[in-house]
Amino acid sequence: MANYKFSLNCPLPIFDYKEILLAHGGGGTLSRKLLKDIFYSQFGNPHLLEEMDSALININSERIAFTTDSYVVNPIFFPGGSIGDLAINGTVNDLAVCGAIPKYISVGFILEEGLPLADLWEIVLSMKNAADIAGVQIVTGDTKVVDRGKGDKIFINTSGIGEIVNGVELSPVKCKPGDKIIINGRIAEHGIAIMASREGLEFESEIESDTAALNKLIDGVLKSSNQVRVMRDPTRGGVASTLNEIADKASVGIKIYENKIPIREDVNSACEILGLDPLYIANEGKAIIIIAAEDAAKALEEMRLNELGIYSAIIGEVTEDNSGMVIMETLIGTSRIVDMISGEQLPRIC
Amino acid sequence: MANYKFSLNCPLPIFDYKEILLAHGGGGTLSRKLLKDIFYSQFGNPHLLEEMDSALININSERIAFTTDSYVVNPIFFPGGSIGDLAINGTVNDLAVCGAIPKYISVGFILEEGLPLADLWEIVLSMKNAADIAGVQIVTGDTKVVDRGKGDKIFINTSGIGEIVNGVELSPVKCKPGDKIIINGRIAEHGIAIMASREGLEFESEIESDTAALNKLIDGVLKSSNQVRVMRDPTRGGVASTLNEIADKASVGIKIYENKIPIREDVNSACEILGLDPLYIANEGKAIIIIAAEDAAKALEEMRLNELGIYSAIIGEVTEDNSGMVIMETLIGTSRIVDMISGEQLPRIC
Repeated sequence: MANYKFSLNCPLPIFDYKEILLAHGGGGTLSRKLLKDIFYSQFGNPHLLEEMDSALININSERIAFTTDSYVVNPIFFPGGSIGDLAINGTVNDLAVCGAIPKYISVGFILEEGLPLADLWEIVLSMKNAADIAGVQIVTGDTKVVDRGKGDKIFINTSGIGEIVNGVELSPVKCKPGDKIIINGRIAEHGIAIMASREGLEFESEIESDTAALNKLIDGVLKSSNQVRVMRDPTRGGVASTLNEIADKASVGIKIYENKIPIREDVNSACEILGLDPLYIANEGKAIIIIAAEDAAKALEEMRLNELGIYSAIIGEVTEDNSGMVIMETLIGTSRIVDMISGEQLPRIC
Repeated sequence: MANYKFSLNCPLPIFDYKEILLAHGGGGTLSRKLLKDIFYSQFGNPHLLEEMDSALININSERIAFTTDSYVVNPIFFPGGSIGDLAINGTVNDLAVCGAIPKYISVGFILEEGLPLADLWEIVLSMKNAADIAGVQIVTGDTKVVDRGKGDKIFINTSGIGEIVNGVELSPVKCKPGDKIIINGRIAEHGIAIMASREGLEFESEIESDTAALNKLIDGVLKSSNQVRVMRDPTRGGVASTLNEIADKASVGIKIYENKIPIREDVNSACEILGLDPLYIANEGKAIIIIAAEDAAKALEEMRLNELGIYSAIIGEVTEDNSGMVIMETLIGTSRIVDMISGEQLPRIC
């Protein structure tokens, strides 16, 4: 740092830690502290501070959505997908949940010296396939190579641009008490698939990642109702973190019902054995949709027509009390607070 | 790969190597083979195949530029800058050389566990400073953390969106014999600064990276002439690779004059000592501008008014003969072919 060009003389905010921890990437409270104290404090502008999955920006008369995500998942091939389709689907979903029609994707590869070309080829094929399914074009890219031992096979950044659907404006602050919370299917499958594959766990029937592009399903919901309040994809940090973020931003309470949350029995068992709470496990093909109560049944019906929505369910509602909190009514009839986790349950999940 | 979801059954193209080499990231012929045989063969679409520094895309009635770059430079702090301002300036320049006004930037961090927060903070400050100077907003971002030994301190992806300046359409195919080739200053400083810093070399006066945002300089050129044919920033692979790419795409010859190419004496000496050809060394604050002969003097005058253009010079011209080739008239009056290099002179330069 001796040769640093600008002497900006701006003191580092106070942290409990002097170094980056794995938990800073986990999507929990430690991630949020890093975001707020380091990134937002310097880069802050209204677009960034909206904290949506995509920034909604204007180019002259057009309103577009813009998003970015880097993928560092380990392993790079796993039941149900690869880092390649994960990267395309993740960016497509970040655009779609903001009410945008995903159109254009950029791809930045960071390859480690020694990566087998055959692996790169499989990943590229999976990206092409995922882009075709989602109906997006990969229009620009970049490739860097780092020396052996300075990366981990392959990291991929995908950024994306989408057109905002006319008239659609989604925001957590639109949530009102009584609104329903819908999810399009069974939770925790991506995280458990990665975990199982990393640890060599075997299940009776293989648990696959749910990685999928949700833009068509979401388009259907937006066409069925003009009272969708907000949508989010519960990836890192799972359903619990996503709902906490919404409750916090919207200053409302959120109540969910454990018995309404769709989950495969073996995924649930795997979570119990591993000591993990499925509410915090990453999903890569799920959307949380908050919608006016009177439109919820119609949206649910629409969603179930899509193969990515056959297990769709209303899992809860927005409440006036318990502002900023997520409360779950458990199977045994008690209530418990579903907190934001501080750290990382499963590192390098996406 | 056993668990791969899509059996696409598409054979891997034939390569001389089975693995990724450092040279695949060098911007030379090996990089191009990877691009063409793996990425273009699958992702190919007219936007991508234009091979511009940014993709020019339409969102309804608006024409925008979209670009992406990942930065893996080693070391992360070097004379004249850091990986942070490099990432902002690089993406700003990729937009600007396509005739776009850079507007919005996304930032994707891949942090290695153990990165000192103080280093991250310095990098973030440098990004903020660079964004302010260039007049762009950082509107969306993402942070991933990888375990110790699986990354190298910090990698940054920056993607960017720009508005296309009304009426500006730049393309190598617009180059005509007689057009002049201008560069806005002295070459090879970024690469030599990195190299010196990595190898602990000392010079009488420190050689600093030329990292800078060129959007204002370029805007001036575009306002001074409506006969700019094409612009490129000669980063990885240097001036030689950039000119070769243009000559190839445009099917014209390019002639340059060694005695017209601006270079600091000590940079030139450093190149001689290190056995490097400055024409192939990366620049991070330079643009190659090809312009109609009658507008060249005016553009040069305009450029020299900008502090990033005081050493601007006409270094050559477009020729009818030697199509697809770059020929240099040397100091001793002979001519030599300036080829595309195959591999990597300096790995991890950006």
